[in-house]
Amino acid sequence: MLIVKKFGGTSVGDKERIFNVARRCIEDYKKGNDVVVVLSAMGKMTDELIAQAKDINPNPSKREMDMLFTTGEQTSVALMAMAMDYLGVPAVSLNAFQVAMHSTNKYGNARLKRIDTERIHHELDQRKIVLVTGFQGIDHYNNYTTLGRGGSDTTAVALAAALRADACEIYTDVEGVYTADPRKVKDARKLKEITYNEMLELATLGAGVLHNRCVELAKKHGVQIVVRSSLNTAEGTIVKSATSTEEKVAVGVAGDKDAARIAVLGVKNEPGVAFKLFNLLARNNINVDIILQSVGRDGTKDISFTVTEDMAQETVDVIRNNFARSKYKDIDVQTKVAKVSIVGAGMVSHPGVAAKMFQALYEDGINIRMISTSEIRVTVLVNEEDMEKAMNAAHRAFQLEAE
Amino acid sequence: MLIVKKFGGTSVGDKERIFNVARRCIEDYKKGNDVVVVLSAMGKMTDELIAQAKDINPNPSKREMDMLFTTGEQTSVALMAMAMDYLGVPAVSLNAFQVAMHSTNKYGNARLKRIDTERIHHELDQRKIVLVTGFQGIDHYNNYTTLGRGGSDTTAVALAAALRADACEIYTDVEGVYTADPRKVKDARKLKEITYNEMLELATLGAGVLHNRCVELAKKHGVQIVVRSSLNTAEGTIVKSATSTEEKVAVGVAGDKDAARIAVLGVKNEPGVAFKLFNLLARNNINVDIILQSVGRDGTKDISFTVTEDMAQETVDVIRNNFARSKYKDIDVQTKVAKVSIVGAGMVSHPGVAAKMFQALYEDGINIRMISTSEIRVTVLVNEEDMEKAMNAAHRAFQLEAE
Repeated sequence: MLIVKKFGGTSVGDKERIFNVARRCIEDYKKGNDVVVVLSAMGKMTDELIAQAKDINPNPSKREMDMLFTTGEQTSVALMAMAMDYLGVPAVSLNAFQVAMHSTNKYGNARLKRIDTERIHHELDQRKIVLVTGFQGIDHYNNYTTLGRGGSDTTAVALAAALRADACEIYTDVEGVYTADPRKVKDARKLKEITYNEMLELATLGAGVLHNRCVELAKKHGVQIVVRSSLNTAEGTIVKSATSTEEKVAVGVAGDKDAARIAVLGVKNEPGVAFKLFNLLARNNINVDIILQSVGRDGTKDISFTVTEDMAQETVDVIRNNFARSKYKDIDVQTKVAKVSIVGAGMVSHPGVAAKMFQALYEDGINIRMISTSEIRVTVLVNEEDMEKAMNAAHRAFQLEAE
Repeated sequence: MLIVKKFGGTSVGDKERIFNVARRCIEDYKKGNDVVVVLSAMGKMTDELIAQAKDINPNPSKREMDMLFTTGEQTSVALMAMAMDYLGVPAVSLNAFQVAMHSTNKYGNARLKRIDTERIHHELDQRKIVLVTGFQGIDHYNNYTTLGRGGSDTTAVALAAALRADACEIYTDVEGVYTADPRKVKDARKLKEITYNEMLELATLGAGVLHNRCVELAKKHGVQIVVRSSLNTAEGTIVKSATSTEEKVAVGVAGDKDAARIAVLGVKNEPGVAFKLFNLLARNNINVDIILQSVGRDGTKDISFTVTEDMAQETVDVIRNNFARSKYKDIDVQTKVAKVSIVGAGMVSHPGVAAKMFQALYEDGINIRMISTSEIRVTVLVNEEDMEKAMNAAHRAFQLEAE
């Protein structure tokens, strides 16, 4: 078996943890498997590098930040190779250049384009454990790039796809994917399995153990991911194309406070007004989430939508400066709102999911301000202070605590 | 003009020093020059990396040490680029892989083979200051290597040669090359010029501001080096093929305590015995320096030679274990000895240099134990406690304090 294992920064934060990871990988190696290990930068190193850079230049160029950042994972893989060597197992560390992890050239947020596998296979053929730097790539001109949030997970999945690995294990500080954030919903339960699509909805909704870019890549290449804890040997959660158990209506509940509701009130009831508004926002790179259009007074209408909180002010400015004042009466902004979603691939074949959720929230006295649905998700916008209550109500209504 | 400037680890040890170096380079840049800057790892970083590695594995593999070490210079160049950017001058950092500094694959002590200049020229053409990692290379298989002691100086000279630079400036914590170590000879004087060959003799003798591999490379490619201080703007010392001033007999005095004298006593007077002895040592990678053969008692002879102090015990062991006991009477080892040398290209045409040195030492009551000469050097072995006295005597005898 060829196994790709990925460990995050906290898993390699100090000597003891480095040896823990080393032993864990060696266990698989000694069973005769080919083992490729993807590592992030050690615990606080990334923060230290940022501090060092900002001390020199409060606004450093992204290219040079990536040049600086990539030393982090290189340190991790070199030290890990030394640890494995100390434990008597041959290992070799490789960075993005040595593997040849080709990426786009968007510094700080690049995408992997192509991974050469020749060097890795060569080292595996010599029965070495291969340690690969996560999070980093090289662009067409050999500049270092970094992959943005969740980058090392993406590296692991991309490597698993390129190497046609038999398993891709992502080790993290939680035991797997839960039906809800256990800090917010006390009955939350670890899932045995979840589909890519469900995981994507959860990731997008901020409940993400895995970043959605990583899940998208896994889905595209059919890479089955196991998410599990680096601290214990509990079974984790398998992320795959279809779950084998009887399809449940819902697998999880997510809450996300990073939302603001913008309402454009008293919009003239002319054809194309809504199109013009959203076209304007798109041209200004403002991502709009839930949209609601309602009939207002005097034949006008109200158009509401949500954006992330940090975009709220910019959104208002863009509308005020570019949208003819005669077309609408006023703009209202509310940031104390939260999105609560219920996700499940089974929804497609189970009508009445939305109604069941609305009922549960209604019974708990929670006011729903907006609604949005996809094939496998129902999202409602509620007041921020109601978020956890709404999550618990939905979790209970769909009996997510039960196996 | 294309100028290559090299700054060592102490010159980039903290924020203030980084900005000092940045301003110094920008000064040349603003005069319209193309500027390439070679940097070492920041002050204590290399020591910290070694400590980190040894904590994991007391005997780390050289390949992985090089993988770890190379993060040091990469950090320096990235931070320097940010500093220059902050000062409003475009800069780009490049590591051994991005430049393509091809080296042999002897980890920890590689030699540069070939440097690609395309990327550097491309960046210079865009009027950027180019910051290059010193000390590192990549082997044929894209593994990182490091160049051993004085590696960053070698990088600078090799780059100057490859780029056909108009100047190669090596900044250090001393103001240049002196006639002797100022801590040992108080009349020591900074030299305006010195030849490659003189510099090589001084470097080999441990008086080296520059490592001899770097000087050899400069000599081979005719790269004129200026050694000067990173702390002030004093004129430095020019290292070149022939000095323009009237040739002086001697340019410098060097002392080196890292020597041990081995005496093989009562060696049988047979043909080939000396050959067999030194052949044995060569096969065991023991470098022998000064050799003296003298007639002993009863038709036997005594063969004495020097090695570095750390090789003394091994040398004795090799002889004891491999050289037939019947061929000699005894072995004597003395470690409390030092080499004192006078160096100067002018010696070739000035007979009597050795005699003048012997006389100076004799007049100061210093006992000479062994003698060795080359075309441009006279070396004597003295008792360790006499070293500084001998250096001062020689310095005075050749009037090195005078311009």
